[in-house]
Amino acid sequence: MPKYKDIARKLIRKIDSDDMKQGDKLASIEELMKYFDVGKNTIIQVLTLLERQGYIYQVRGSGNFVRKHRRHGYINLLEANGFKSTLQGFRLGSEMLDLKVIKPTTEVMANLDIPEDEDVYYVKRLRSIEGRKFAIEKSFYVKDIVPYLNQEIVEDSIFRYLIEDLKLKPGFTDHFFRVGKLNKENAELLNLKIGDPTAFLESIYYLENGRPFDYSKILYHYEEAQFFIQGASNTEF
Amino acid sequence: MPKYKDIARKLIRKIDSDDMKQGDKLASIEELMKYFDVGKNTIIQVLTLLERQGYIYQVRGSGNFVRKHRRHGYINLLEANGFKSTLQGFRLGSEMLDLKVIKPTTEVMANLDIPEDEDVYYVKRLRSIEGRKFAIEKSFYVKDIVPYLNQEIVEDSIFRYLIEDLKLKPGFTDHFFRVGKLNKENAELLNLKIGDPTAFLESIYYLENGRPFDYSKILYHYEEAQFFIQGASNTEF
Repeated sequence: MPKYKDIARKLIRKIDSDDMKQGDKLASIEELMKYFDVGKNTIIQVLTLLERQGYIYQVRGSGNFVRKHRRHGYINLLEANGFKSTLQGFRLGSEMLDLKVIKPTTEVMANLDIPEDEDVYYVKRLRSIEGRKFAIEKSFYVKDIVPYLNQEIVEDSIFRYLIEDLKLKPGFTDHFFRVGKLNKENAELLNLKIGDPTAFLESIYYLENGRPFDYSKILYHYEEAQFFIQGASNTEF
Repeated sequence: MPKYKDIARKLIRKIDSDDMKQGDKLASIEELMKYFDVGKNTIIQVLTLLERQGYIYQVRGSGNFVRKHRRHGYINLLEANGFKSTLQGFRLGSEMLDLKVIKPTTEVMANLDIPEDEDVYYVKRLRSIEGRKFAIEKSFYVKDIVPYLNQEIVEDSIFRYLIEDLKLKPGFTDHFFRVGKLNKENAELLNLKIGDPTAFLESIYYLENGRPFDYSKILYHYEEAQFFIQGASNTEF
């Protein structure tokens, strides 16, 4: 991990442990250089990263200020590495309903940009939070990039396995979001009624080199799931 | 507008007019310097901005590549300036249902961080797309920051008025997203049935200086609205 990412992580922990609030002013660049014992360029990289991630905002000529995720239990849609990281403090479960190697459907081919004879891992999981049904997730992984999966990996964290064991470097993500009604099969899995609302999230995860490796479709329980999106500063022009 | 933002805008238009696809390689920094007749620092600012906004991704040692919004008609939740800009090419309508100055409710006070005696503009609008009911939007503006609104402004674009006429500088945004069921009043407004699904978006818009000025609550027609979120590169660490 590059030094500035390590320091960014430490600074986020410090913001939390100092119990800083929305709008609280961060220490100056000089103070941060001293505190972390690094050079100015590193601190500037740290602040740029934290601004992009929505942890702080910069006011020209005035300094850097804290942004706070102010609602507990919301899923941060801009954190790309699976949903576990954004629901810390909750007891999360993952039950594997299916795992097999298949040939892609037309939809999967289009979203993963692969030909019809390319093998994909198909994983279906039932997610729970605090013991309550939370979401049905169907994922499709390009087998050429993710050569092996088993139940243990699938019920723990696939993303941790991809990053720590397979040494993959996830780059960016496209999310598509709609609202709809549950059909019979999915309503039964979530202990809901046919026609009840659901949030439907499709995500395409790309490697750093731009190649898509994971296409996932998630149906959320409408009473359990809520989402959070922190827009970066100055996104419009 | 700073020069690099102007050039960023031109480069986006060029990517479109050249009909570049996901994964197509962008011209080199040297070529872009020559094409736009600017220095290296400006081009690096342009590329940093476009990466942050999800238009390109950078592969170290290899260059810059195009990302493409690949689905038409999806609302980009990361574009902060109202919903008009992300639905270009569609005929959008906005009917004012209510406009008045009120004292804030507890909910509005909390989200706008104002005391109970602070005046706010309350605006209720019915949004349409291609003549079809699309969303019900209730917005609350701090009157101290937005001193005047009328029907003409409200039915055109409040954000354009804020930026171009009031010279406000929007900074960042928090979005909160849930799914629920419609009650009688809202179902009637959207020509739907009681209990039908709806996407419920709450947004808090902040000025560049970190002060919240707009709290909006939108109920979307579940068959009309779909959302798009383009995660920036390397958001995780």
